[in-house]
Amino acid sequence: MESFQSIASSCQSAVLEAIPSKWRLQGRPEGTDVRHIPRSCGLMTPQQLLITEKSATELLSELHSGSLTSVEVTEAFCARAAIAHQCINCLTAYIYEEAIARAAELDEIFAKSGPVGPLHGLPFAVKDYYQMKGHATTLGYVAWHSKIALTDASIVQLFKKCGAIPFARTTMPQTGMMLQTVSNLWGRTLNPYNTGFSAGGSSGGDGSLVGMRGSPFCASTDIGGSIRAPATFNGLYGIRPTAERIPKNGLVTTAPGQVSIKVSSGPVCHSVADIKLVTKLLLSHFEYIGYESTAVPMPWREVKVKEKLRFGLLKYDGVVKPQPPILRALDETAASLKRAGHEDLFSPTTAVVEFELPFDAWDVALTTWRLYFQTGAAEVKAVAASTGEPLMSNFSWYLDTFDIKPLTVPELFQLNAKQAENKRQFFEAWKAANIDALICPCAPSAGFPHDFPVWWGYFSLWNVLDYPSTILPLKGFKIDPVIDAKDFKYVPKENVFDKMNWEVYDPVLWGNQPVCIQIVRPPYTDEELIDVTERVDEICNS
Amino acid sequence: MESFQSIASSCQSAVLEAIPSKWRLQGRPEGTDVRHIPRSCGLMTPQQLLITEKSATELLSELHSGSLTSVEVTEAFCARAAIAHQCINCLTAYIYEEAIARAAELDEIFAKSGPVGPLHGLPFAVKDYYQMKGHATTLGYVAWHSKIALTDASIVQLFKKCGAIPFARTTMPQTGMMLQTVSNLWGRTLNPYNTGFSAGGSSGGDGSLVGMRGSPFCASTDIGGSIRAPATFNGLYGIRPTAERIPKNGLVTTAPGQVSIKVSSGPVCHSVADIKLVTKLLLSHFEYIGYESTAVPMPWREVKVKEKLRFGLLKYDGVVKPQPPILRALDETAASLKRAGHEDLFSPTTAVVEFELPFDAWDVALTTWRLYFQTGAAEVKAVAASTGEPLMSNFSWYLDTFDIKPLTVPELFQLNAKQAENKRQFFEAWKAANIDALICPCAPSAGFPHDFPVWWGYFSLWNVLDYPSTILPLKGFKIDPVIDAKDFKYVPKENVFDKMNWEVYDPVLWGNQPVCIQIVRPPYTDEELIDVTERVDEICNS
Repeated sequence: MESFQSIASSCQSAVLEAIPSKWRLQGRPEGTDVRHIPRSCGLMTPQQLLITEKSATELLSELHSGSLTSVEVTEAFCARAAIAHQCINCLTAYIYEEAIARAAELDEIFAKSGPVGPLHGLPFAVKDYYQMKGHATTLGYVAWHSKIALTDASIVQLFKKCGAIPFARTTMPQTGMMLQTVSNLWGRTLNPYNTGFSAGGSSGGDGSLVGMRGSPFCASTDIGGSIRAPATFNGLYGIRPTAERIPKNGLVTTAPGQVSIKVSSGPVCHSVADIKLVTKLLLSHFEYIGYESTAVPMPWREVKVKEKLRFGLLKYDGVVKPQPPILRALDETAASLKRAGHEDLFSPTTAVVEFELPFDAWDVALTTWRLYFQTGAAEVKAVAASTGEPLMSNFSWYLDTFDIKPLTVPELFQLNAKQAENKRQFFEAWKAANIDALICPCAPSAGFPHDFPVWWGYFSLWNVLDYPSTILPLKGFKIDPVIDAKDFKYVPKENVFDKMNWEVYDPVLWGNQPVCIQIVRPPYTDEELIDVTERVDEICNS
Repeated sequence: MESFQSIASSCQSAVLEAIPSKWRLQGRPEGTDVRHIPRSCGLMTPQQLLITEKSATELLSELHSGSLTSVEVTEAFCARAAIAHQCINCLTAYIYEEAIARAAELDEIFAKSGPVGPLHGLPFAVKDYYQMKGHATTLGYVAWHSKIALTDASIVQLFKKCGAIPFARTTMPQTGMMLQTVSNLWGRTLNPYNTGFSAGGSSGGDGSLVGMRGSPFCASTDIGGSIRAPATFNGLYGIRPTAERIPKNGLVTTAPGQVSIKVSSGPVCHSVADIKLVTKLLLSHFEYIGYESTAVPMPWREVKVKEKLRFGLLKYDGVVKPQPPILRALDETAASLKRAGHEDLFSPTTAVVEFELPFDAWDVALTTWRLYFQTGAAEVKAVAASTGEPLMSNFSWYLDTFDIKPLTVPELFQLNAKQAENKRQFFEAWKAANIDALICPCAPSAGFPHDFPVWWGYFSLWNVLDYPSTILPLKGFKIDPVIDAKDFKYVPKENVFDKMNWEVYDPVLWGNQPVCIQIVRPPYTDEELIDVTERVDEICNS
């Protein structure tokens, strides 16, 4: 049997070899911030740089008016993605010729009869988690390096039907259950702001590629933060829609039959308009590809939330205290919202109120992890063992920390009942607070060094409750070594996460990291969530 | 400790004692068809008889115009329900004074400011499965005879908010997992068409009470046929809406945490208009009582299905052959639909096409039962054992027949994955058949003698797939000893149900039973289902 190292080496070489020589970098890029490389390497034309720095919405406007062709746009993103991959190792497949051929075909159709759909001519990269006909879906397992799909996942079908062109596949970590992106098969994906930092995960290939502007957007997936961690750590816009509304056929999982917490799909991208564009298509999938039994076919509602909004502010979950820049970002957001006229001068209520969780967040995290791994992660271990590859140490650490063991069905029933009770409690608290949206941290830090054990709680809480949430980058926010100085007097809580999260922080090392906030709404109100996010974006980023 | 028999005896006496002496029957009614008793006993006024023989929609029209008062209507149904209970043993509580007081209050409000809601002044009985503040929810367990609820179930709140008045509680069988209604606590509920026959279950109290016109409608519940069996065996209209759309707070279950197959709620009633009235409220619950985390808040859609409909006809699931009247009812329905102009004379397609299941229905039933009892029914056994009451033999028989044992989580995952695959397969078959609705048997017989082991498959298939379905009585259909003669040459399949279902049939014994059909649509299309049902009703019952 071929060794797992040898398989990994061939797979990684194959991606690099698929990149045309015109886009090969000479040597490895220097420095830890590699975002400038596409611009400084001299391999892209000014027009290609211009194209790739536009949002999906802007590009579609030009593709639909005919001022850009799909071949131009696709070629530009193929160039930039090739360069990005050589900087941050974010791809598992590079499908250049096929993509350009499809782009040329779409340009011809456009000339004859106009655009084929709302995403006409737009290239996009596809996470290694979605089945794509003729390509492997590996989930970062060596054993699955040649697991070729016979059909496209529903969401790939949807985007293709809307006129989009898949042109690359992006990395995810072994198992998918890490907030960083590393595997024996594909190696490690780096953060373009600081290659010593994590790209986030599990959609770290998506996040870092879109961060490098190597794809206008990606449809990432999220069962515990996998859309939102990469969006956060790469300074992007993102959304985890209500999981129940997302079509799931062709989303590969190691453990089919786990029905307590469901995976969702949503874009990482460059604007709220892009969030709305892609999410509307995802949630209206049934109009394009028909009903499927994995999703609630709830019609998309065009909404406009009320003029006066009342925000809840959750700064701290009681388990892991966010580092100083995160706390300041939340305070400044609250202040901006109040200043922006959301406070009614003539009434005792204010536009931003403190919000407290109605339960112990550590207890909820325990429930969440045990629901993720109801069999004690037996399937994951079996797939890894089949080729002799070890489990990633970061993944194993979580299994130990949350004491993951096989459950009995009565134990599972208790956890399911607890989850239902948590949903009930949380919505009661929401009603009592009488808020329109909740603002909270994304992670307790603006990114992490590789292999750091990140506290998932601020992300995974919304998976276990199935509350949709968006990630909003604060574009003017810069981490400052003085203002955001470390609080040396802080006494961490009695849990391993809080101590490490406090210890690791160093405002100088973090100086280049983007900072984001998270906005949350109740299930099935994705439309209102996007609208609220647009308002906060206007206030905080204009 | 008080014996379970003694507790049962007190509980049953308390219901009878709550009935005012003016509505006590002298002696037990004679004969097996007791439907005439309210009319022939002389205890009700002509006006009361008239009121109780109207549908909910008709009554509401008069309540809203002021031509009937709520006190008149409530008094009439209290009378008829009291008489019904003495004939068929269908109640677990009788709440006369409270109901009349509320009716008087509503009449006062009406005089001042009009109706309080769409169900203004309408009395209704509540299954012993919904929590009702101050009343026990027993689920037919002796142990729970004094388990008093502190709040109303969401659906009770909803109807009260809409102006309806709960005036009685109705029986269900021990555990709720039987298609008949019998328990050690409440005894046996009888079928008003033939007291030797089952009332159906688990909402047998609802079905037989509405069959006797002792309540204008009831909101029954269904996880395997519990709305539809009582509707079928009592000749009523009924619907099991998409379970995911139903608010479930305050629905008591023996095994919280079972999330694979969910319970639904829907009316048993006297017309399609009543189905629509009640279902629209159930599915729009969030507009009245707010969002709750147990239900998808999908807005009700006013639909009108297309003029030309293409029906699938499933006469036989390959496991249990329906008895002759059922097969004839299906054939005659198909013929009526064709005659009614649904067949396009100038095209090769017909309005009714044969439909075949894309899987083995026995295999699906095995999956279904194992998903119902993932712990091997441990919780059920524990509750019964706590007072020494035995499990009902009919219930135990099913556990043995489907070889119910505690599952491991990996076994459960396999069954969950199988359920998901069955959903996928079925919808593929539906699309391939290109049908607008499916017509199929309700049960393989028009009712059954008490304790007969009924084949659930024609009901429970739609629970495991979560396809909404309606029950439509064929009002002109009469079982005929000659036309519907027993097929003595039939060779039953190699399963215990088919043999017994064939053996038990006797057209003379069945002569008085009503016959219904079932109509099915894909998940979340409850609105279209009701509209299709209305069309079939117009064609078959006018």
